Amino acid sequence: MPHQPSIVTLQPRAGAASALLKALLEQRRPGHSLDAPFYLSDEVFQADMEYIFRRHWVFVGVAPQVPEPGDYVTVDVGADSVLIVRDDDMNLRAFHNVCRHRGSRLCQEHQGSLGNIVCPYHQWTYDLEGRLIHADHMGQAFLRDQHGLKKVHLRNLEGLLFICLADEPPADFDEMAQRLGPYLAPHRLEDCKVAAQVDIIEKGNWKFTLENNRECYHCVSNHPELTVSLYEHGFGYQPGPQNAEGLARFEQIVKERHARWEAMGLPSAQIEELDSRITGFRTIRLPLDRAGQSQTLNAEVACRKLLGDFSDKALGGLSVWTQPNSWHHFMSDHVVSFSTIPLGPDRTLVRTTWCVHKDAVEGVDYTVENLTAVWNATNDQDRHLVELAQAGAASSAYEPGPYSPYTEALVEAFCTWYVDRMRAGVSAGR
Amino acid sequence: MPHQPSIVTLQPRAGAASALLKALLEQRRPGHSLDAPFYLSDEVFQADMEYIFRRHWVFVGVAPQVPEPGDYVTVDVGADSVLIVRDDDMNLRAFHNVCRHRGSRLCQEHQGSLGNIVCPYHQWTYDLEGRLIHADHMGQAFLRDQHGLKKVHLRNLEGLLFICLADEPPADFDEMAQRLGPYLAPHRLEDCKVAAQVDIIEKGNWKFTLENNRECYHCVSNHPELTVSLYEHGFGYQPGPQNAEGLARFEQIVKERHARWEAMGLPSAQIEELDSRITGFRTIRLPLDRAGQSQTLNAEVACRKLLGDFSDKALGGLSVWTQPNSWHHFMSDHVVSFSTIPLGPDRTLVRTTWCVHKDAVEGVDYTVENLTAVWNATNDQDRHLVELAQAGAASSAYEPGPYSPYTEALVEAFCTWYVDRMRAGVSAGR
Amino acid sequence: MPHQPSIVTLQPRAGAASALLKALLEQRRPGHSLDAPFYLSDEVFQADMEYIFRRHWVFVGVAPQVPEPGDYVTVDVGADSVLIVRDDDMNLRAFHNVCRHRGSRLCQEHQGSLGNIVCPYHQWTYDLEGRLIHADHMGQAFLRDQHGLKKVHLRNLEGLLFICLADEPPADFDEMAQRLGPYLAPHRLEDCKVAAQVDIIEKGNWKFTLENNRECYHCVSNHPELTVSLYEHGFGYQPGPQNAEGLARFEQIVKERHARWEAMGLPSAQIEELDSRITGFRTIRLPLDRAGQSQTLNAEVACRKLLGDFSDKALGGLSVWTQPNSWHHFMSDHVVSFSTIPLGPDRTLVRTTWCVHKDAVEGVDYTVENLTAVWNATNDQDRHLVELAQAGAASSAYEPGPYSPYTEALVEAFCTWYVDRMRAGVSAGR
Repeated sequence: MPHQPSIVTLQPRAGAASALLKALLEQRRPGHSLDAPFYLSDEVFQADMEYIFRRHWVFVGVAPQVPEPGDYVTVDVGADSVLIVRDDDMNLRAFHNVCRHRGSRLCQEHQGSLGNIVCPYHQWTYDLEGRLIHADHMGQAFLRDQHGLKKVHLRNLEGLLFICLADEPPADFDEMAQRLGPYLAPHRLEDCKVAAQVDIIEKGNWKFTLENNRECYHCVSNHPELTVSLYEHGFGYQPGPQNAEGLARFEQIVKERHARWEAMGLPSAQIEELDSRITGFRTIRLPLDRAGQSQTLNAEVACRKLLGDFSDKALGGLSVWTQPNSWHHFMSDHVVSFSTIPLGPDRTLVRTTWCVHKDAVEGVDYTVENLTAVWNATNDQDRHLVELAQAGAASSAYEPGPYSPYTEALVEAFCTWYVDRMRAGVSAGR
Repeated sequence: MPHQPSIVTLQPRAGAASALLKALLEQRRPGHSLDAPFYLSDEVFQADMEYIFRRHWVFVGVAPQVPEPGDYVTVDVGADSVLIVRDDDMNLRAFHNVCRHRGSRLCQEHQGSLGNIVCPYHQWTYDLEGRLIHADHMGQAFLRDQHGLKKVHLRNLEGLLFICLADEPPADFDEMAQRLGPYLAPHRLEDCKVAAQVDIIEKGNWKFTLENNRECYHCVSNHPELTVSLYEHGFGYQPGPQNAEGLARFEQIVKERHARWEAMGLPSAQIEELDSRITGFRTIRLPLDRAGQSQTLNAEVACRKLLGDFSDKALGGLSVWTQPNSWHHFMSDHVVSFSTIPLGPDRTLVRTTWCVHKDAVEGVDYTVENLTAVWNATNDQDRHLVELAQAGAASSAYEPGPYSPYTEALVEAFCTWYVDRMRAGVSAGR
Repeated sequence: MPHQPSIVTLQPRAGAASALLKALLEQRRPGHSLDAPFYLSDEVFQADMEYIFRRHWVFVGVAPQVPEPGDYVTVDVGADSVLIVRDDDMNLRAFHNVCRHRGSRLCQEHQGSLGNIVCPYHQWTYDLEGRLIHADHMGQAFLRDQHGLKKVHLRNLEGLLFICLADEPPADFDEMAQRLGPYLAPHRLEDCKVAAQVDIIEKGNWKFTLENNRECYHCVSNHPELTVSLYEHGFGYQPGPQNAEGLARFEQIVKERHARWEAMGLPSAQIEELDSRITGFRTIRLPLDRAGQSQTLNAEVACRKLLGDFSDKALGGLSVWTQPNSWHHFMSDHVVSFSTIPLGPDRTLVRTTWCVHKDAVEGVDYTVENLTAVWNATNDQDRHLVELAQAGAASSAYEPGPYSPYTEALVEAFCTWYVDRMRAGVSAGR
């Protein structure tokens, strides 16, 4: 006898968007930061979780976290714990981390390794494909095959893992994979190992975290470590007589490097789809300043063992951004990935993962301290800025201010995508 | 001039059960765990406090906590602090721990001893019967006899103390007392002293705490200390060819012991009224395994000085459960009592009290460490399981799962009682 | 193009007073403490912030906190951070501490000194008069003069600083200043320095803090340090045969001292306007007991260097109370000021500031320990009493109790003012 799903919940997950939320979405003023309730309101937060994080492809980790059969990680998106496991045939699978008996959480650690999935409460036992294979005392009438683990959609894009909690995930992932795949493939993330992973919690709304990520207007005065390797012209700049020469020089460098890298089989040209599709994304391979090799304190590689088949250290940085919650930098020697998960209207998890070639030896080819120095410092600086923005948005004096047409175009693209997707969610109701 | 009670409060305590709560109660599926909002929702929590904890007899402590005149304990149930005091005539009395002047809390400690009850704010002074006997500066027109402490219903069942915050408490307490009294009396709890009391907070809904208590399906793989003395067949077991012999042997042991204990004047037969009355309860005296004496790490008595007139150490364990919030084990040498008080939708206090004969000498007749070892360990294991269940219920993938017809019948009885009493509360409105 | 203000917010700041709040205000029973929701409810807290703290003159600090050009302090009132700065012409100005670009908080410290106000996020730069004087990358069309800091109303009453967050602040401040000014002026607070400032957080509603401040019924049994210098008859006393002599003696002392002080140019007579105007206030100069000089542990001055032109140490204590949130004691040697800011329904900041003559030398003329001993002890005692009141108000047994007609008249005046002002706010709507 199949279970009849509950027809009533006290906190319906969607469908009940208030008149106020609709009005907020309606009145959004292009070119300006969002109205304060987008950053403060619990209703908007719940709607963000429902319309954005449950209905889109969310970046949650990298394949090197689960290299062997039985390896698993758990990731939390809202109240949902998702178990990502590599099965005995090396397939990656994702399940809700919830027992079908009385709902106990199954795996309690962030990562680990297991043969079967055994509930700690009453020992109900599932195999790595999610089938219930053992349950004591349940009687003859009990149907085990009705009580397997519930599946979650999972996609592996050249080692980047995305999940979608919706029943029917956005279909445009495939096209993104087709277009992004050739950029990512040469770095061979699946042949990497995780060298370091750091979680920080920012006391701010996740949209402030993303807005902060999508511009470098704030970099020059806040990120001394990051700007060692970043060209200041690379992320938007108001042209004028005093910097015309610098801008022209930078554009020339980009042109030359792109030609060289493309000739090496490394796609480099910008793809800009941040606000033009459901699964918004953007990529470009940009030259790095100084030694030009990697985002480190001296712009040289952090790992002597290069990725894939690379022999040239100076491949710049392939940057990838995906909506709603990730950004990545692929260099010749390492990959650094960022996943942003909202924890509340004013709390956001930022998880940073550094990967190097799986054969690189710590202490010989690289040190964790050097590998992580730039982004640990930069993340902490950004956390502080996000928290200042959060404090300011709560003020009665806050009003949406104007974005720079030169340096904040990608912030605008993020906000446009966000508002569009929220409108779509509100219109569709459940 | 008597005070006119307020006619409006901003958060009405009852009467306003939402359509959603009603629907949840209506659609409860027998034989399955409850819908998620029962464990998560603040509205349900408020309704639980109103319909269950304000309108039923709640176990709050034992008489040995207040042995002498002037001894008091305070217990918190929701936002209500209740003062239980032994007056000069040795009567136990319960009052709201609230001054009638400007509402200050009166007694601030969990327990203590006092002559009169003096408000720390402006020294309004009440005697142990709750009468206001002194108040400065209140003028000639002030009527002291209109400003005595507000009483709370209190019942003492052979040393077990129950309060009811309702104006008219359930009348069936007397019948429970009549039927349970003969089971409890020989252990003479009122001649005991408190040897230890430990509070833990479980980060889970109180119903998960109770459901966990009402089955031992989880014991074999989670409670190595407790199962030293517990027969695994004693708490429900699916019969089958592989365990037919063990079950038959256990039933024979129960039969023999019950005959012996009844002959000694110790009622032992099961009374099962968990879901068949307002003041639901259950009792049975069960044999213990191995040394058969007590719930200790070696199943031998923890205290050499036995309770009451006992000379036989092997009296098994008289277990008592009361709805909504207590369970107890009475052995030949000690009594262990558990009180569960909800603190929030996802926080629950579990207070465990161990009593031994009042003449037992610590360090000679017993040690606290040995006396408390089994249940301190077991409580911590159960806390962990309750917290896993709470985490799971928050998942969008949670759905009520099936209870074992063999091992989870008392869980079902708890849920049935709970849903019945909630429906009764909702129907009655205020 | 001027910005069009948002027309929708998810949490409207006013206008939506519920039927319940209106009923609570309607049914307030004179002579009794307030109904429990006034101390507990989040809705009332939000209404308090809107109708009381955003629409009245709120005491936030003293001029000696910002003695030099560029000195600033930040104060938080609700979610609003207000920046108070002394400009280059020695004028005091108040601004919302919020950048006009993307809303970042500007100044992050409680106090400091600066030349211009530079946003840490993208370096937008404002001068001390609030004008935006620099912003990179904003393009030719950007109008700097449309993006200056938003102003907050500020008044300086003989060194006491008040702000009002309303667009149109209560006009009766001027008359209060006219009447209070002559009392305050001789103490020359503007020629003082801050010797100490201490913040404490009371886990109680701000109205409990104020009610506690507005009576001394509780002093004799709770404040051993404060009552060294306070005459017990000075704050209300039920007359009767046993204390007729003491009261008559006290009244005679007041009469004699007032005559002496008035002759010295020190206004001393009571002004009682706590509940008779929008900007409620009260003052009186009262004799001190024992050495009669100051609120210290021996009633002698805490600072050898006296204020202003004073040569007589025994000037009693000029007490000033303002609605909704301050009280002050001006003595011959020092001034102690108290500011109360609600942080939540059950959390309140009490900031105490001690000022001495700016030429007094610490360690020579005064010690901070001796200067602050009485009020640090008293504040901690009051904090405890407020917390007991908060705990009691949450009880279902709480009901408004009677105020003493002798000792609690100013508590009644506070409540009357509060209820009147809330009714006015609710009637006016937005």
